[in-house]
Amino acid sequence: MKYIPINFQKKYSKINEQWSPKVIAKMNDYQFKIAKIEGEFIWHKHDETDEVFIIVEGSMKIEFRDGSVNLKQGEMFVVPKGIEHKPIASKECKIINIEPSGTSNTGDTKSNRTVNGNDWI
Amino acid sequence: MKYIPINFQKKYSKINEQWSPKVIAKMNDYQFKIAKIEGEFIWHKHDETDEVFIIVEGSMKIEFRDGSVNLKQGEMFVVPKGIEHKPIASKECKIINIEPSGTSNTGDTKSNRTVNGNDWI
Repeated sequence: MKYIPINFQKKYSKINEQWSPKVIAKMNDYQFKIAKIEGEFIWHKHDETDEVFIIVEGSMKIEFRDGSVNLKQGEMFVVPKGIEHKPIASKECKIINIEPSGTSNTGDTKSNRTVNGNDWI
Repeated sequence: MKYIPINFQKKYSKINEQWSPKVIAKMNDYQFKIAKIEGEFIWHKHDETDEVFIIVEGSMKIEFRDGSVNLKQGEMFVVPKGIEHKPIASKECKIINIEPSGTSNTGDTKSNRTVNGNDWI
């Protein structure tokens, strides 16, 4: 049987578009999605689930209505369910999100930023 | 409100013991556990859940009954539920495991390697 490692940078090399998460792995009913982000995203929340951010390269900020957190390579953060947040990156940042399969990237907010988050690479 | 990033290396600096996973984050009913590993672990499986390995520093191998996978920094692997596996690291390797809260590090195998996996750092 051939077992293949999932290499983050190899996966990132397959995507160019920003803010367009792609699935790289599945654990039970959770998906691991990579994305390249730059600029400001929209305010949104996920009423049904926490959301994990892991920073693989670069740095980003997550704004909340009552504060913010700065994240850099080698750091993670868990956004609690139901909490409004807005991701921002001043330069391109490579992140991994972990969340249940079918979770929308814009949560309860429908927007032109909403994408099909079920594409694998 | 103060939001604090979870910095992997800062968390690793708080543990010395090998093969002793410590919880650093919780997402819904899943735990993120860091561990330093070196040498051979024992064969075991998790009948109820997949198990994620993320390599933060160093390299390791996961042996299966019918093959193996080599993993290095910046890579991950999902061990499917019910599949026997044995982690090995020739030098100390820093990993993150993601699995449901309460998952035993030795799965269905009780051993002197079994630890309480619910300690936070």
